[in-house]
Amino acid sequence: MTATPFGSITDVAGVDVGHHQRTGRGWQTGTTVVVVEGGATPGVDVRGGGPGTRETDALAPENLIQQIHAVCLTGGSAYGLSAADGVVAWLERRGLGFPVGPPTGDDQRVVPVVPAAVVFDLERGGVFANRPDASFGDRAARNARRAQQAWGAVGAGTGATAGGLQGGVGTASTRVRIATPPATADDAEPAPFADIVVGALAVVNANGTVIDPVSALPWAPSGARLRRPTRPERDALGDALAEQARAQLNTTIGVVATSARLTKAEVAKFASVAHDGLARAVRPAHSMFDGDTVFGLATGASELPAGPTRLQTEGSRHHALNALLAAAADTFAAACTHAVLAATTIGHAPAYRDLCPSALR
Amino acid sequence: MTATPFGSITDVAGVDVGHHQRTGRGWQTGTTVVVVEGGATPGVDVRGGGPGTRETDALAPENLIQQIHAVCLTGGSAYGLSAADGVVAWLERRGLGFPVGPPTGDDQRVVPVVPAAVVFDLERGGVFANRPDASFGDRAARNARRAQQAWGAVGAGTGATAGGLQGGVGTASTRVRIATPPATADDAEPAPFADIVVGALAVVNANGTVIDPVSALPWAPSGARLRRPTRPERDALGDALAEQARAQLNTTIGVVATSARLTKAEVAKFASVAHDGLARAVRPAHSMFDGDTVFGLATGASELPAGPTRLQTEGSRHHALNALLAAAADTFAAACTHAVLAATTIGHAPAYRDLCPSALR
Repeated sequence: MTATPFGSITDVAGVDVGHHQRTGRGWQTGTTVVVVEGGATPGVDVRGGGPGTRETDALAPENLIQQIHAVCLTGGSAYGLSAADGVVAWLERRGLGFPVGPPTGDDQRVVPVVPAAVVFDLERGGVFANRPDASFGDRAARNARRAQQAWGAVGAGTGATAGGLQGGVGTASTRVRIATPPATADDAEPAPFADIVVGALAVVNANGTVIDPVSALPWAPSGARLRRPTRPERDALGDALAEQARAQLNTTIGVVATSARLTKAEVAKFASVAHDGLARAVRPAHSMFDGDTVFGLATGASELPAGPTRLQTEGSRHHALNALLAAAADTFAAACTHAVLAATTIGHAPAYRDLCPSALR
Repeated sequence: MTATPFGSITDVAGVDVGHHQRTGRGWQTGTTVVVVEGGATPGVDVRGGGPGTRETDALAPENLIQQIHAVCLTGGSAYGLSAADGVVAWLERRGLGFPVGPPTGDDQRVVPVVPAAVVFDLERGGVFANRPDASFGDRAARNARRAQQAWGAVGAGTGATAGGLQGGVGTASTRVRIATPPATADDAEPAPFADIVVGALAVVNANGTVIDPVSALPWAPSGARLRRPTRPERDALGDALAEQARAQLNTTIGVVATSARLTKAEVAKFASVAHDGLARAVRPAHSMFDGDTVFGLATGASELPAGPTRLQTEGSRHHALNALLAAAADTFAAACTHAVLAATTIGHAPAYRDLCPSALR
């Protein structure tokens, strides 16, 4: 497995990302939409004690919906769930969703299922009533593209904080080489089968810290080359971390995507193990005040081995799946770290890169 | 919160631990029992892809049983679940269990509910048919005591491996200071309320590694003062880690216990967040071949604040619970690390302390 941290979730072919945000005049919030126009098999795992979500029940492995076309991540706490309405309308205009009723030429009726999760950023811009609505979802979806340069304090990360620092949206990707079963019994070295891409996007608005207060560096190594901050920088960081009101409702939400073809149940497991990356990158995580939620998406471009499920057989489906699970954790951890490294100061919370500029050269 | 790593789960008053194992003559397996004769509110979270468990459904928050008196952790894979039978019989003899039928003097009928989880250690001693039975559970329960000195390759950790190294049983404890609500509105500093103890016991038989192959030190800092191993030691460790057959069924199982009084639902959350510690200490974790399972136990000696659930109120129940959740993750991580640090070489798999003696001075 080759980690290519600070790649992007859009390295998974077919996955686009769009942001929309508003800052100033009492605003500091936004919405990020992950769009898969070709459809993806979905999954989700909700592990925080205070989640705010929509359409997560439809993603249960036993339930009807097998493909979705977008996930909406947004500020605005429970109010912000209305941002997903704009994504639903945008998908309907494109005829993307669960097909219903008889096909009527080009006019196939669809019901778009847009899972969503929110972060708590109310009043970060100063006005409690300023939060994303359907227009945010619509604009974020219209901004969706493969080449997405903006990370950090953008989209759903605009109003985010992470342990007293500015939070944000981060991303990363990893390439996983999956082995095939040996062609013959005495074929010791399995041939390479396929390069599978695993990408992650995380909106970090965590009650916990992403930066270790002792080392002033991220808890989770992410592949970023960082230097130890200077003494005055470490002191400034320590002050900022101490400022953190421990009583805040906070949340890390995100998406892990892969180019592999997985079953709905496998995508649920894939999303679940991504929480291991969250546990490594954000400390503590999954508290009663966190709404930590990770969605999984599998585009299905690359087939995994079909079997067998035998322990001693390299190249089995479950070995391949295990490699993707490990990559989900590693990549989601890197995305969380990147969210905080990429963020710039836009409101009251200072950004890591502004407090510790020497860490990033 | 003061971490006192390499304390013991038996630092939670009322919690005892007993081991029984067999080695040599084709044997290398055993059983560990956590006994709470005074009863504890139970919970569980199963997050591995290949679990082997018993009585986990009874622990669901909505189900009947509110108190249990023992948890059984054992080698022997699915066969080893019979070890719990011996614990059930031992508890029945003591009249400990769910009371049924009319009380008949000293002869109260009980049904002991003994949750159990297994690790896959079949054939580690050489003979596939040698695995724990009810006599192992009985002996481990009879050995249960507060002062438990033996850790590492004992009990359920006897046949355990961790990324090619000898695995084992580890423990740790943490003391958590819980704040009370302020007595008056302008009382800025809440008074200390209680010191709550959080203890963990982990049986590490992981497919992933506990030791970082690059640094030759544990992934998760545990409070143990370790030195960087010498170059020859690091090379020997690298060889051992590479030896690991990646196809093994493996599992980390354990218990987190606390002296707090929690609801059954709160104990389930407490067990769930302990998996964050597993995710930090064992990499990767929660694979399809891991049966990772953590039980929670709350003895109820110390009351938590009853409320209110308000974000800005230090001293609320949810702030106290959050502190216990964070301690569950930290303490379980330390227990996992300790399992591998404490293990000695008893079979084919070399122990960390024998490969890298200079790390432990």
